[in-house]
Amino acid sequence: MDATTFVLFGATGDLAKRKIYPAMYNLFVDGKLPQAFSVFGLGRRELTDEKFRANVEHSIRTFSRRQPADGSSLNAFLEAFRYSVLDIGRIEDYNKLLQLVEQREAALGADPNRLFYLSVGPEFFETIASNIQASGLSSAAGWKRLVIEKPFGHDLQSARNLNKHLSRSFTEDEIFRIDHYLGKPMVQKLEILQQSNPVLQALWTNRHIANVQITANETVGVEERAGYYDHVGAVRDMFQNHMLQLLMMLAIHLPNHNSTSDEVRTKKKKVMEALEPLFKEDVAFNVVRGQYAAGEIQGKAVAGYTSEPGIAADSANDTFIAAKLQIDDYFWRGVPFYIRTGKRMKEKSTRIVIEFKEPLKQSSQKNDERRIPNLLVFEISPNESITLQLSTRDPQHRGEFKPMFIDFRSDSHEVPEAYENLIGDALNGDPTFFAHWDEVELSWKWVQPILDAFTENLVPLQTYAAGTYGPAASDELLARDGYRWQFDAESEHNIADSAAASVGEEQLQKVTQNEMQIETKEGNTYAYHANH
Amino acid sequence: MDATTFVLFGATGDLAKRKIYPAMYNLFVDGKLPQAFSVFGLGRRELTDEKFRANVEHSIRTFSRRQPADGSSLNAFLEAFRYSVLDIGRIEDYNKLLQLVEQREAALGADPNRLFYLSVGPEFFETIASNIQASGLSSAAGWKRLVIEKPFGHDLQSARNLNKHLSRSFTEDEIFRIDHYLGKPMVQKLEILQQSNPVLQALWTNRHIANVQITANETVGVEERAGYYDHVGAVRDMFQNHMLQLLMMLAIHLPNHNSTSDEVRTKKKKVMEALEPLFKEDVAFNVVRGQYAAGEIQGKAVAGYTSEPGIAADSANDTFIAAKLQIDDYFWRGVPFYIRTGKRMKEKSTRIVIEFKEPLKQSSQKNDERRIPNLLVFEISPNESITLQLSTRDPQHRGEFKPMFIDFRSDSHEVPEAYENLIGDALNGDPTFFAHWDEVELSWKWVQPILDAFTENLVPLQTYAAGTYGPAASDELLARDGYRWQFDAESEHNIADSAAASVGEEQLQKVTQNEMQIETKEGNTYAYHANH
Repeated sequence: MDATTFVLFGATGDLAKRKIYPAMYNLFVDGKLPQAFSVFGLGRRELTDEKFRANVEHSIRTFSRRQPADGSSLNAFLEAFRYSVLDIGRIEDYNKLLQLVEQREAALGADPNRLFYLSVGPEFFETIASNIQASGLSSAAGWKRLVIEKPFGHDLQSARNLNKHLSRSFTEDEIFRIDHYLGKPMVQKLEILQQSNPVLQALWTNRHIANVQITANETVGVEERAGYYDHVGAVRDMFQNHMLQLLMMLAIHLPNHNSTSDEVRTKKKKVMEALEPLFKEDVAFNVVRGQYAAGEIQGKAVAGYTSEPGIAADSANDTFIAAKLQIDDYFWRGVPFYIRTGKRMKEKSTRIVIEFKEPLKQSSQKNDERRIPNLLVFEISPNESITLQLSTRDPQHRGEFKPMFIDFRSDSHEVPEAYENLIGDALNGDPTFFAHWDEVELSWKWVQPILDAFTENLVPLQTYAAGTYGPAASDELLARDGYRWQFDAESEHNIADSAAASVGEEQLQKVTQNEMQIETKEGNTYAYHANH
Repeated sequence: MDATTFVLFGATGDLAKRKIYPAMYNLFVDGKLPQAFSVFGLGRRELTDEKFRANVEHSIRTFSRRQPADGSSLNAFLEAFRYSVLDIGRIEDYNKLLQLVEQREAALGADPNRLFYLSVGPEFFETIASNIQASGLSSAAGWKRLVIEKPFGHDLQSARNLNKHLSRSFTEDEIFRIDHYLGKPMVQKLEILQQSNPVLQALWTNRHIANVQITANETVGVEERAGYYDHVGAVRDMFQNHMLQLLMMLAIHLPNHNSTSDEVRTKKKKVMEALEPLFKEDVAFNVVRGQYAAGEIQGKAVAGYTSEPGIAADSANDTFIAAKLQIDDYFWRGVPFYIRTGKRMKEKSTRIVIEFKEPLKQSSQKNDERRIPNLLVFEISPNESITLQLSTRDPQHRGEFKPMFIDFRSDSHEVPEAYENLIGDALNGDPTFFAHWDEVELSWKWVQPILDAFTENLVPLQTYAAGTYGPAASDELLARDGYRWQFDAESEHNIADSAAASVGEEQLQKVTQNEMQIETKEGNTYAYHANH
């Protein structure tokens, strides 16, 4: 593996602590870091290397899925870490950093391959990229890579502007746009499962599939991100990136299971190109715009969106969006894709549900028989599982059909975090599970009419009580086509799990609170806040 | 439910104790026995009603899946039981029985519907049926039914003779031939699963299925049945009845999921008619004839077949048979069915494995990649489950494929015993899951060339070590077509379960030994011995 200098902007931030350091540590344990590896953590505050390493250690002990067995292996890991003060706008700071980096590379006898990871707010992307170039940090003989977090632009035009700016300093091949949903193991497996299983291939077509439902629901509200979120909404925060990426990953049909990253990204682009465009005047019919009102989640009363700190009482921001999409290609013609994502929903769950067509209606079938469709469910988070829902009945009690669940569940401790996969891929230079500019641009292009329609208030804002599955209009969107959202928590399958799941949720909240305190104490300024 | 007098021949026998009484008790608990219900237990020995009821109670406490919570409900159940001495050949005993039955029916004010259950050796079938008729037991105004256990004949001719004799006393509609494999819940569900699930329907054809493998393996040897078994062999004891019934149940395609018993049996007959006939000279190529030698099962040394008590040292009897069959109809043309059954095998398991066709061979695929086909596995006993085996690989470790198991397992305490289903059906007059004469005759017809070839020694007798999966020739039967027996205990899927499974096996053996002692003590003479 190539020697690498990992330059991390936003080293004292929330994302670094919760995700990046634990991911690096797990890669280290798995022997997936380069032999010659250095991390330069950058932040505005003064911090000694020792204090920085102590912070990194604390983050691993708090958030890593695996814990250090003894101090010595952890120390070997921490030795790679150095800290530098850096003011994003000061070119002198970059010049100084370049000297430190060069010294370190010389000391290691390592090739000057440099990965710049921008774990900072999007308003700093362009400045950092320019200063990296201007300082000569990216002019060494080795390779250079730029890893950036979302959001990539605020609408189609701003995304194009951002890309134009970045491309002055980095080529498309050098830019790794993180969409961490692409790092989730179940999402990465979608392509392989389809490719390597004739049973799934046989079913994976509009001959057998009635519709596809993609859900990413959260139970949390706007939290500390009010100022940012209120200008973004669910459509930009989740839909334009994560949700459309899930749609692409599900809908691609690859030529073979050793497909290259080029093939994967070409096919994803084709899916986006085949997506029937939505015109501004059609948005109200195909898209549901929702905002949570006060309600109750797991027995606890929670405030409505407009009562949250930092949100204006008359905010019309969307905290929920549901949409119907159609892909007009050979495989998917006639199969509606329903997508929804929201905050303050009844359950936390990201999943893809494939609903299969009913058998031919039989004259002898009673009309009042409860309809139990065949489903293939990919649960992506918080736990990963695959379920095939069949329908059966006891031959000794003719007439009463009930669902039968065929499950695969993996042990969550064995499953790598999305960031492990993505940072590992970035170190290896594998762009397969990063968002290509073409995908990002086509996504913004598809979403732009929704943004316009929301701005012009062409779509009514529907409120929904916190702790529900969103506004009634979201159910009507499917009911109109004869369908309903499948596999929500009320479904028989999930009843048995709900106790366990809610414990997990509470634990997660505790961790989050704990971490928020750390965050407040350290008071970083430009670091990116992790979410979802 | 019609008032019923249940006349049980072989009331002190093994099958009655292990299966029939517990089944009746569970039907009673479920409210599935008629209101007016009497049991007349018949045996050669003198026994008071009280002693008989005590025996029935003992059998329930020893073998029933559900135990009586209090004495009163058990007493209500036992009140239905009466005992009569009967010598099968003495018409006077039948005349006396008729009087007792009539008295009881009169006392209950019940219609004279009579179910005659022959839990006795096949040599008594004809005598009993004639005497039932001659005594007038079957001439009352109500319905009459004859329930008989296998074996139904010893070859095609003897089966025809037996049927001719029985049909002098009972019509085909009145004869319920038990094949208890048809009573197993998973077997009963095969038809419904296929009917009510478009996903399975889509896959259930020769377009997607490569082959079907039906296995019924036992770990026990010949046990106490040496005298009987040595004249029968695996081909008559298991293959002609149970195995071909499983094949029919898997292969039928029903018009709709409310199919009548007539439709089910018509379709089963069609499967047998479409089965490509085997000619005597082809048997050696398509059938493997095996006999176990000494070996080891679960760490314990066991004797070879010809060293078993009661078996001649030069016996050429088959304790294992494997065969390749082909159904020449629209759905199954080109799909080989491989069937095997044996004693003293490595594991006890009855299962159906559907192996799906491979995806198109890809030029980029490495030839040494371990082949992991898609499988749909119906585990019928000892535990019921459905597993879909897919293949996947970790996207972070390209190249290495591994199987992924999607499972459904039902709680075995909730699953009714085969005999509960079958006795309940017989009481209701539902013949769906009983073997029709047409099926029995066609099965014997198909098997007859195998019997002939074995007799004429046209097929070499292959020995196999006890505790294995049978002779190498059984593997070669599939290897010739490019396949192998799938999902045997070595498969990754079963490794985790093996500890639990072997405990269950031991417990079962304990129960069996326990029961053998009871059996010996009571020393019945003509009662049928339960098996499998």
